[in-house]
Amino acid sequence: MPLYKAPLRDMKFLLNEVFDYPGHYTRLKTGENATPDIVDAILNECGKFCEAVLSPLYQSGDEEGCKLDNGEVITPKGYREAYQQYAQGGWQGLSAPEEYGGQGLPASMGLFKQEMMGTANWSFSMYPGLSMGAMNTIFLHGSDDQKQTYLVPLTEGRWGGTMCLTEPQCGTDLGQVKTKAAPQEDGSFKLSGTKIFISSGDHDLTENIVHIVLARLPDAPKGTRGISLFIVPKLLPDGNGGVGEANGVTCGSLEKKMGIKASATCVMNFDEATGFLIGPENEGLNCMFTFMNTARIGTAIQGVGPAELSYQWALDYARERRSMRALSGKKEPDEVADSLIHHADVRRMLLTQKAVAEGGRAMLYYAARLADHMVEGHTAGDQKKADAYDDKLGFLTPILKGFLTELGNEAANLGVQVFGGHGYIREHGMEQIVRDTRIATLYEGTTGIQALDLLGRKVLLMTQGGAVREFTLKVANFARKTLTDKRVRPFSVELLKLTAQWNVLTVRLMLAARKDRDVVSSAANDFLMYSGYVTMAYMWARMAAVASDKLEKGGADSEDFYRAKLATAEFYYERLLPRAQAHATGMLSPTRSLMQLAPEHMAFTD
Amino acid sequence: MPLYKAPLRDMKFLLNEVFDYPGHYTRLKTGENATPDIVDAILNECGKFCEAVLSPLYQSGDEEGCKLDNGEVITPKGYREAYQQYAQGGWQGLSAPEEYGGQGLPASMGLFKQEMMGTANWSFSMYPGLSMGAMNTIFLHGSDDQKQTYLVPLTEGRWGGTMCLTEPQCGTDLGQVKTKAAPQEDGSFKLSGTKIFISSGDHDLTENIVHIVLARLPDAPKGTRGISLFIVPKLLPDGNGGVGEANGVTCGSLEKKMGIKASATCVMNFDEATGFLIGPENEGLNCMFTFMNTARIGTAIQGVGPAELSYQWALDYARERRSMRALSGKKEPDEVADSLIHHADVRRMLLTQKAVAEGGRAMLYYAARLADHMVEGHTAGDQKKADAYDDKLGFLTPILKGFLTELGNEAANLGVQVFGGHGYIREHGMEQIVRDTRIATLYEGTTGIQALDLLGRKVLLMTQGGAVREFTLKVANFARKTLTDKRVRPFSVELLKLTAQWNVLTVRLMLAARKDRDVVSSAANDFLMYSGYVTMAYMWARMAAVASDKLEKGGADSEDFYRAKLATAEFYYERLLPRAQAHATGMLSPTRSLMQLAPEHMAFTD
Repeated sequence: MPLYKAPLRDMKFLLNEVFDYPGHYTRLKTGENATPDIVDAILNECGKFCEAVLSPLYQSGDEEGCKLDNGEVITPKGYREAYQQYAQGGWQGLSAPEEYGGQGLPASMGLFKQEMMGTANWSFSMYPGLSMGAMNTIFLHGSDDQKQTYLVPLTEGRWGGTMCLTEPQCGTDLGQVKTKAAPQEDGSFKLSGTKIFISSGDHDLTENIVHIVLARLPDAPKGTRGISLFIVPKLLPDGNGGVGEANGVTCGSLEKKMGIKASATCVMNFDEATGFLIGPENEGLNCMFTFMNTARIGTAIQGVGPAELSYQWALDYARERRSMRALSGKKEPDEVADSLIHHADVRRMLLTQKAVAEGGRAMLYYAARLADHMVEGHTAGDQKKADAYDDKLGFLTPILKGFLTELGNEAANLGVQVFGGHGYIREHGMEQIVRDTRIATLYEGTTGIQALDLLGRKVLLMTQGGAVREFTLKVANFARKTLTDKRVRPFSVELLKLTAQWNVLTVRLMLAARKDRDVVSSAANDFLMYSGYVTMAYMWARMAAVASDKLEKGGADSEDFYRAKLATAEFYYERLLPRAQAHATGMLSPTRSLMQLAPEHMAFTD
Repeated sequence: MPLYKAPLRDMKFLLNEVFDYPGHYTRLKTGENATPDIVDAILNECGKFCEAVLSPLYQSGDEEGCKLDNGEVITPKGYREAYQQYAQGGWQGLSAPEEYGGQGLPASMGLFKQEMMGTANWSFSMYPGLSMGAMNTIFLHGSDDQKQTYLVPLTEGRWGGTMCLTEPQCGTDLGQVKTKAAPQEDGSFKLSGTKIFISSGDHDLTENIVHIVLARLPDAPKGTRGISLFIVPKLLPDGNGGVGEANGVTCGSLEKKMGIKASATCVMNFDEATGFLIGPENEGLNCMFTFMNTARIGTAIQGVGPAELSYQWALDYARERRSMRALSGKKEPDEVADSLIHHADVRRMLLTQKAVAEGGRAMLYYAARLADHMVEGHTAGDQKKADAYDDKLGFLTPILKGFLTELGNEAANLGVQVFGGHGYIREHGMEQIVRDTRIATLYEGTTGIQALDLLGRKVLLMTQGGAVREFTLKVANFARKTLTDKRVRPFSVELLKLTAQWNVLTVRLMLAARKDRDVVSSAANDFLMYSGYVTMAYMWARMAAVASDKLEKGGADSEDFYRAKLATAEFYYERLLPRAQAHATGMLSPTRSLMQLAPEHMAFTD
């Protein structure tokens, strides 16, 4: 199995040439230390760690999986040592506030790190990823005391964290949560209940684990308005930054899963476990969801990562494996056959992977700038700024999470396809990418939930189409400006058509939904995918415009790189973007064809 | 995990109401015994066997897998007993000639059997499936002596069979085969070489295994014209219908795969193994491919099966699991939440599965009639008839195999999606369907190879578009006839447009390919998928026409069944068929966007 190579050239193209991160960082308080040379050094160092330490554990972690031994979860061989290196390198606190031991760099830096780690070894990256969720929650809603007690060791990576939401009877529908929290005289609570699908619920990487748990207080209102948030540590803090006695929270069993086997997915039993309220009573869901948009961008990485990794390995294979002759004539006449890469249909698959990986990465880095502003708003206590940027991000996150993870699955499957029968064999690693990636459209809100969030909430309910208008205005402005560049003009023309169509579709759905509420759920998936294809088209046009500019000016040190960008943009517009039109047709279809069949008439097998 | 239910109602609808199999069988020699009551009894019996014996072994076989013990492959628990029942029931010889111990029923009956077995337990069904490949080859190309020696025990199911084509250096490109066959004085050969990916290469289900092996004679011409076909039994026949000494063929190792784990995929070592030439020297590939079209229809079943199985289980889950409220208002106000099936987006996924399963089944059964005629031509020694029907089938098989297995993968993934996070957990079986199905687009010719076979060979090279003209004429004639039926008319109108478009696209590709040969490989995948969507649209219109007719006449015993057919046809035309237009756009795109990048400029990670 080959190893992961950090795509630093592409990352720096986006950061420095497309999205002007150096300029962006000068406008951020946390950007003070993020000077170009520091950013460069960090990315290079992170890339090395991912290539040399995390990537070699990718396949062995899958083969070995996690084990539950005497109530304790054992991670695969090498994971402890890798995590030690990670923690000691200060990586967990990269974007965390300096006052709690972090390095105080912008949130976006954390995302670039996450992308490389997640691509090299998704399962490994989930342990620090979940800790980050706990850190964000405590940072925003914890008391000063809670921050000192929990945030500091979390930031140091000495302790890990989890988010405990799902229960056997409910995942999406958290209003059904049953776990109980009984108040104690000392102000703490005793939590009892069962949580399932808890990633990193238990493991041997850190000396303690901080669970953030949704539970109900006695006499809390029914449904989502009666849920509170608690901190439940695995070992109770000793008050001096160390750990004391064990708490009543244990891992009951490990789930057997399709993939991400090196990530422990636990059933967690809370048996009168001591917990501490975080945030206001009965507002647990709101607190939990404060950083939802950033968490979902984190998951959107799992669309880009598999596309990148699978592309790297499939490309190597397509260059080496020989089969048949190219239809346009022998390309390697001295060899027994031409390599796969000379076959147009193989190129179609490879270029799809490439277009998704690079186009998706651009979408992530575009959104990461907004995330920086949002986090800065929170940190400065500027709620208005935080909310404004959270809204902008809120429109993009379901697109990123929903659309990119769907395309990530497609890209990973294409990688298997390039390998032919060999793709199905475990030793090549290609099928593992498919199995690992399959979770991405399921957790942190399924694609269906992202689609409803986008169309139902963000577009129709909250902004009456305003979110689309605002975003497409930006896209159309860009497109108009680039009409004069002959290399980019075909893309700009197409973008102008699409931005107009996107608004028309939105208005038509809005009108239709007034008469028939099922329209929203019926059109949501097509609307999400349509939005994704158009957003990615915008990214490809932006990358193409930069590439064209560099070529125009001449003297660029890597003309081939820019030409490849233009060629990939062309591929995207010609071969992938047409799918948007099938979704446009689909979303306007009457709800009748979905809703007319009675549940009992869906099958006649009895 | 639930169990498989044989969809007999739908099968009988296709057989008796849509495709008039009773009439078809009266025109076949092998149809003499296939009277409606016999057919009915066989389907019911086969359904019971699949439901009660094969389905319960589906998940346990995946968990346990095959083991290599002291050079012998051990199948999972229960597989031997199930196979005994299968063989003793005479199922292996269902469509085999009576003179070799078969039941002499039409080939299509074997396909209906294969569909049920493959849906209930694909891994299990591969053992008899591979035997069938060996049987077909020996039946067509073997000497009388070879037929008596091998075909009889294969037909009885006492012996199993394999097809040994692939070697480490080549799968698709069989011209690279290296295995050697050295002639011996007694007229036999000694075969030496390594074959990989040999399904059923070794197992403990039968007393002997008959390998059909591609190898080269000394001084054979290079490439595909120098390959001959050999019979290499695991144990040499004793001349009395029993087995004698062991031959020099052994299983070197078992591949570790993504799925179909209960099917043994073997590396087979031939070490001076005794073999017997079958068919003429150096014409091994032609002999091997005689029944390729039927074998590929067999694999196309793996598009329909997973869609059906995953649909059955996802539908059950969607009826039971409760989450959130339907957007159009509470559907089950007394429950904590509405069941999933009341959400339009969940219905979109379920109906996609249903449309693929039923539409795909119709495609199979449509093609099976042609297969019956082709086989009858072969059996009667009427080569002209055999070739004529092989050509008709030859146009459809890449569409069936390529398109249906791609959609089967999509459908299986949607089943996981309906389950949400639970779909990722092994105990529910949904992720196993995805893993098992993933092989379908890879073996027996990848989707890319099917696409090239369709567009490059069948459509452009062999018939200069004639294959499309012939098929679309049939479709258009049907569409014109049904224009007067108001329920079917929207479908007919669409079909008329599509048949015209299909021809226009074909002519445009033909002209473009004259100037640029890469057009064929560049357009092939889109052409394949387009062809698939249109062919399935034809099937849905035919089913809709029958359903409409039954409802029109009234008094049908199952009006709900017919209404469900019409509703599903409507769903297909509104929500899935629009994808054909994205493929139409894609296939006409210039080859440039695929071919312009030099292999060394596909990535810049170094």
